Order: sequence, then C-alpha cells, then structure tokens
Amino acid sequence: MSEIKNSVNILVGQSGGPTTVINSSLYGVIKEAISSEGINRIYGMINGIEGFIDDKVIDIEKSMTEEEIELLMHTPAAYLGSCRYKLPMDMDDGVYKMIFRKFSELGIGYFVYIGGNDSMDTVDKLSRYAKKTSSNVKVIGIPKTIDNDLECTDHSPGFGSAAKYVATTVRDIVLDANVYNTHSVTIVELMGRHAGWITASSALARKFEGDNPVLIYLPEAPFDVDDFVRKVKKNLENNNNVIVCVSEGIKDKDGNFICEYNAKQGVDTFGHKMLTGCGKYLENVIKDELNVKVRSVELNVNQRCKAILASATDINEAIECGRYGVKMALKGETGKMITMNRKAQDEYEIEYGVAECSNVCNKEKLVPDAWISEDKTDVTKEFIDYVTPLIQGENETPMENGLPKYCYRKN
Amino acid sequence: MSEIKNSVNILVGQSGGPTTVINSSLYGVIKEAISSEGINRIYGMINGIEGFIDDKVIDIEKSMTEEEIELLMHTPAAYLGSCRYKLPMDMDDGVYKMIFRKFSELGIGYFVYIGGNDSMDTVDKLSRYAKKTSSNVKVIGIPKTIDNDLECTDHSPGFGSAAKYVATTVRDIVLDANVYNTHSVTIVELMGRHAGWITASSALARKFEGDNPVLIYLPEAPFDVDDFVRKVKKNLENNNNVIVCVSEGIKDKDGNFICEYNAKQGVDTFGHKMLTGCGKYLENVIKDELNVKVRSVELNVNQRCKAILASATDINEAIECGRYGVKMALKGETGKMITMNRKAQDEYEIEYGVAECSNVCNKEKLVPDAWISEDKTDVTKEFIDYVTPLIQGENETPMENGLPKYCYRKN
Repeated sequence: MSEIKNSVNILVGQSGGPTTVINSSLYGVIKEAISSEGINRIYGMINGIEGFIDDKVIDIEKSMTEEEIELLMHTPAAYLGSCRYKLPMDMDDGVYKMIFRKFSELGIGYFVYIGGNDSMDTVDKLSRYAKKTSSNVKVIGIPKTIDNDLECTDHSPGFGSAAKYVATTVRDIVLDANVYNTHSVTIVELMGRHAGWITASSALARKFEGDNPVLIYLPEAPFDVDDFVRKVKKNLENNNNVIVCVSEGIKDKDGNFICEYNAKQGVDTFGHKMLTGCGKYLENVIKDELNVKVRSVELNVNQRCKAILASATDINEAIECGRYGVKMALKGETGKMITMNRKAQDEYEIEYGVAECSNVCNKEKLVPDAWISEDKTDVTKEFIDYVTPLIQGENETPMENGLPKYCYRKN
Repeated sequence: MSEIKNSVNILVGQSGGPTTVINSSLYGVIKEAISSEGINRIYGMINGIEGFIDDKVIDIEKSMTEEEIELLMHTPAAYLGSCRYKLPMDMDDGVYKMIFRKFSELGIGYFVYIGGNDSMDTVDKLSRYAKKTSSNVKVIGIPKTIDNDLECTDHSPGFGSAAKYVATTVRDIVLDANVYNTHSVTIVELMGRHAGWITASSALARKFEGDNPVLIYLPEAPFDVDDFVRKVKKNLENNNNVIVCVSEGIKDKDGNFICEYNAKQGVDTFGHKMLTGCGKYLENVIKDELNVKVRSVELNVNQRCKAILASATDINEAIECGRYGVKMALKGETGKMITMNRKAQDEYEIEYGVAECSNVCNKEKLVPDAWISEDKTDVTKEFIDYVTPLIQGENETPMENGLPKYCYRKN
C-alpha cells in the first residue's frame, strides 16, 4: 500500500520575473513534499516549463545538499531558473501531449508552478488539458510577483519585500538629499508598468507628517508634465529638498508612456539611439524648467533581489504558500492558485485558500482609486494600513566573509 | 582648577558628500567629548563651516536626547548637515577673523571637522591661521569618504560600507540576471569619478572563480569603447549572462569622460537636453552593436547611504576615528588628520595615528597600478586581500515598524 502511495512524484518550477522570495516558496514546496507521505521524488524543472520541454529536470534531493535547501529561504532570484513562455490556446497542439508524456515518464502526480499572471495561465491550461485527457496530474499555482497585481488574493509573495526595500531606500535617499542647505529635487523611479503598488509603498518612508517623498505618482492616474513641474516648484517653497517618487509606467492622459517621450529624440554622436526611463526624462525637464539641482535615481532590479531587506512576513508567507500548495495538490485540487486572505480583525492574520487560476490569469489588480489621494499625488491611510503589516520583520540572511551566503546553480 | 579645565568647549562639524558612517564619527566625537574632563560643552555646526559663518550652531547635549545620540551610530547621511565650502587662500581675508571671533565667543578650544579632501584643506588653513594669530584653538580632521581617495591613511571611514554595499548588490544583481536561459548583458555603473576603489570592490561579489562580474573597469586605466564591445562579445561565448562593472569616471585615452560622449547628442521632442551616465551610454552601444538583451543599473546614492548594509568594521573604525580625534585635540595636536595604519601581520588590526593635513588635502589616492590586472579589466589578489577585512561585520540597525529607525533634524 505505502509503495503505491510513494510511487507518485512531484514536479516544481519557477516562472516569470524573479523576486526576493520566489525561492522561499520553492523551499516551502520542497519541505512539505519531503514530509509528505504521498510523495516520493521531488523534481525541479530548470527554466520553467520551457526548460522542461527541453528535458531540463533535476532531482532536488539528489542535486541539493540540506544546507543548500535551507539557504533557499534567504536567496533572491530563481534557483531553478525561469522562463517567459506561454502555452498555445489550442489544446490539440502537440506540446501538451509532449508535456504530459514527460509527466508520465517521470511519474509526476503533482505539478506546482510558482509564478505570476502568465504562470497561472500555464497552470490553468495544463489542468484543463489534464481534465480533458483524464490525466490524474494535479496542477497548482503559487502566486509570485513584486508588482502585487494578481487578482483573488489580498497580496502576493514578493510584494512585501519590494515594499520594504523601497520604503527603506527612499528613507535613506531622503536623509542623503537633506545634507545640503541648497534647493534640490530628487526623482526616484520605481517599478510598476501598470500597477502602482510598489511606488505607493514609498509613502512608508516618511518619518513624520509632511516628510518626503512629498509627491507620489502612480500609473493608475494620468500624468501631466506641466502640472508636475508646477507642483515641484510649489513644494520647493516650503522644502529645501523635494523628493518625488514616480512609477516607471506613468502615462499622460492620452495613454502615452512618459518614458517614451524620449524615444523621438536624436541619436548620440556615434549614431546610437538613447533610451532612458521616465525618471531621467523628468530630471532633465526639471533641470531645464526650474534651473535647480536635480538628480534621478532608478532603483531598478534591486527592488526584486535585495534579500538583505526582505520582509520576514513576506518570506514566511511565501514558504507557507509553497507548503499549502503541496497540501492542496495532495488533496486533489487542480487548476487553482493559492490565495492569502486577510482576516477582518485588528491584528494582521492570513488565511490561506485557493482560487480558480482562470479567474487570476490575464487580469491585473490595480491600486484602487479610493486609495489614491484626490490630487493624485499621494496615497490614503487605507493603503498605509494595508501595506504596513507586509513589511514587518527582518530577514536573517546567513553571512559569510562579510557577504550574504546564497545557494545557486552554476550555469 | 577643574573650573578652568571645564571652561573649554568643543565644536564639531561635518562636511563634503555624505557617507553611511559620517554620523558614526560624530557619535565617537560626542561620546569622547562627554567623557573627557577637559571639555565642557559640545557644539555642533549646522551645514559645516558655511553654516557656522551664518551662526548656525547647536548645543548637542541640549538638542539631542541620549537615544538620538545612540541612533547616530546607525544613521546614514550627515546629521548636522554638510556644505561644500572652501576657505580663501588669503589668510588676511576677513572670514578667518570672523570665524575665530565666533570660536572665542563660544569658548571653543577644539574644533573637530569630519570630512574629505576639501575639509582637510579647511582644517589645515584654520590651524595655520590659529598658529599665525597665537590662538590656542586646536583643529583636527576626521577622514570621511566613500571614494577612499584620502592620502596618508590605509583607508577612510565610509569606504568599507560602500564596498560592502556594492559587493552585496552586485552579487544580488548577478543572481537576478542569471534566471533566464537567454543571453544578456548587465552594466553596473558605480561611483568614483577619479578613483576606482568602489568599482574595484565589485570583485568581491564573485561566488567562485570565473563568476560575474567578468569585466571591471576603473577610471585609473584608459577605456576603449570598441575593445569593450569586443570583450563583452567574447565573454558571451562562455557565459549566458555577462555582468560588467564600470566606474562613472571611466575616460578614453585622450582623457574624455565616456559619460560625456552623450553630451553632443540631440535634444528630445520638447527641446530638453538628455544627460545620462556612462552605464546608460554603454547599454545603448551594446544594444546597437551586439543586438543582445542589455540593461544598465546605476547604484547611485545608495552606495553612500544604505545603512542596513554598512560594515560593522567601518562603523567601529569611524567611531574610533572620532574618539581618537578628540583625544589628539586634547593632547594639543592641530592641523592633523586622524589616520588608520594597518599592522603588518596576518590578522587585520588598525593602529590610529595622525598626519599633517597639508599632506592630505588637494591630493587623490588612486588604486595602484599593481592592483589592476594586466588587461585592465579586473583587480588582483592584493586588492582583494586589502578590501576583504573592511567589509566584515553587520550593522545592527534598530528597526521600528519594519523600517530602520534614524535620528534626524527637521529642516
């Protein structure tokens, strides 16, 4: 009997953009799978479903030491590698048959995919194909995104750490900008092409009411360059140093990205076209229009990989999502994404659940209008109350010779 | 007798660009002054010597709580504010008389100035003026620079933390860049207009021999764009992802800054001139020449204000430099900068000393040729041995509500 039970293997993969805690979810999946009687081997797909199609699979327990598995908890980026691959709409496409043949060859009973929007589309499609072909393989998605734009869940693993990094870093930048007794403007460009969750979190950087950043611009509201210049000028009347946070994805009222305002400009002396972000663009605008010292800072990929500033809450939730995903798969759930539901009570507490992936994929959860201030340059207390619990607790990154110790595959 | 002793006050100021640990030195000065019988009041100048000329002075013990003084140890940027102000060459200029009159009005017997090159020039000039006018005021400089370009000292407080931040962050960025199975180039632009110490420290990011960053370019060696493109291309043959670290100040063989190659380019559609760094410039060059996925990341001011990644060694040395500065002033030293001398032994140990400020100011200590690899794209083991002890130990930043707790003046 136990032999039959143990003949089922689990496959886990990571997909989409890396985050600080996608490896924490991988850790959760591995630990739960190891302790689950119903699971025999744990396979990891290298570079997601795309690598799996190319037979890139490892046996986790054979290829990783116990120490390496523990280090996953604190290691940013995607240990197994990632991909951006969308399965075809047509279920008769040979790729489905091929994937399920490989599942069968490896004795896969459960497939857990850690990723964002597109990955949930993969979970949805594979689970539908399984049902259609009467395959017993259960497919579960674990949410992951720094952008926090996944539907059906209070928030997603990855966001809390990005928010904590941004809040801390903007607080540092504000202190740094304040040292001189001369007027200056600092524009901090933050990630978020469509959803402003990360940029909104910069409000946490304030040490007191009225502190910097005094202006926060999300992609959810139309951006007007002239009005921006006016507001910066106005704020310089009361502040020596004005710090502004902008989402990379801010757009004008006609839907044009501000960062694309640069696109039509000339080439450099060697004929290379210059492409820059909206922060650099606005820096040059302020320099020209207000003739004040101005700098732009793009936090860039640090927002998704600064493990040392990960939120312990985020890490723990990422692990728990991984663990819960395995439990749900064992329970027979399929085509579902793990969700986190915030209990309606004073103290922050999360209840884990599942949602149909078809209700998640190809959608984007934006910052609600009610959480953006009336003049569209700040967030409301509701947002602060929402985000504050997500950044609590510090990551105890193991250090070696003065630097964080990570686990990684050489590639 | 003790009344006469106690009638002498100390003045402390901060100057030049902020660092992660310039407040740690301030902490050291304050704590040593509090415990010194020969010192009565501790005055802080706001915005350095420039603010002092404008009578911006605070009584530290009256304006700061004990908790705030403790927080200084972990707070980045300059608590007292900073300035960039150079005293005139002409000692007959009225500003000297005015400064010494203010010293006299406040009963200042000792002036400790924490700063870099220009600040040591101030220390030198004020001490010479004191000697010339038979003033008893003793003037001492505490070294501070992330650039590590001060002469007469093994290294300077501020550098170790910048090096630790850069090494950690480049290690994070390398993991982040490795997640996809496609070719990519990441160019990390680091601080250092003339001296490459910070950029050189990115070599510490490597987890194993041959790991990224595979190319490191310092301003000490001439930079050739075509050769750079060739080397990146060559490295892409063996690495999916090539990470390159460049100093902001890299120059071609004729001494032109690479970041100024952009300057002649056109303006954008709205007539604003685009100015970007060398990283962005090289990103566009690689995109055009190699047609590969490429990104540039500028770590920017984070290199000098990311307190959470400060090196405990650096913090402790910064404090000790502050303490030692007060001790030397009390001993009657003047016109001197505190130095750190590394003992010639296996275990890292620092001996504190003094150097004439006139031997420090208006000079720049560059990375020695012997510590740069033959092909000018890496550093040698000697540099690694030099820098490794400086990044040891973690900053125990006090956290409050998920964010670092800092002390600051509202301004």
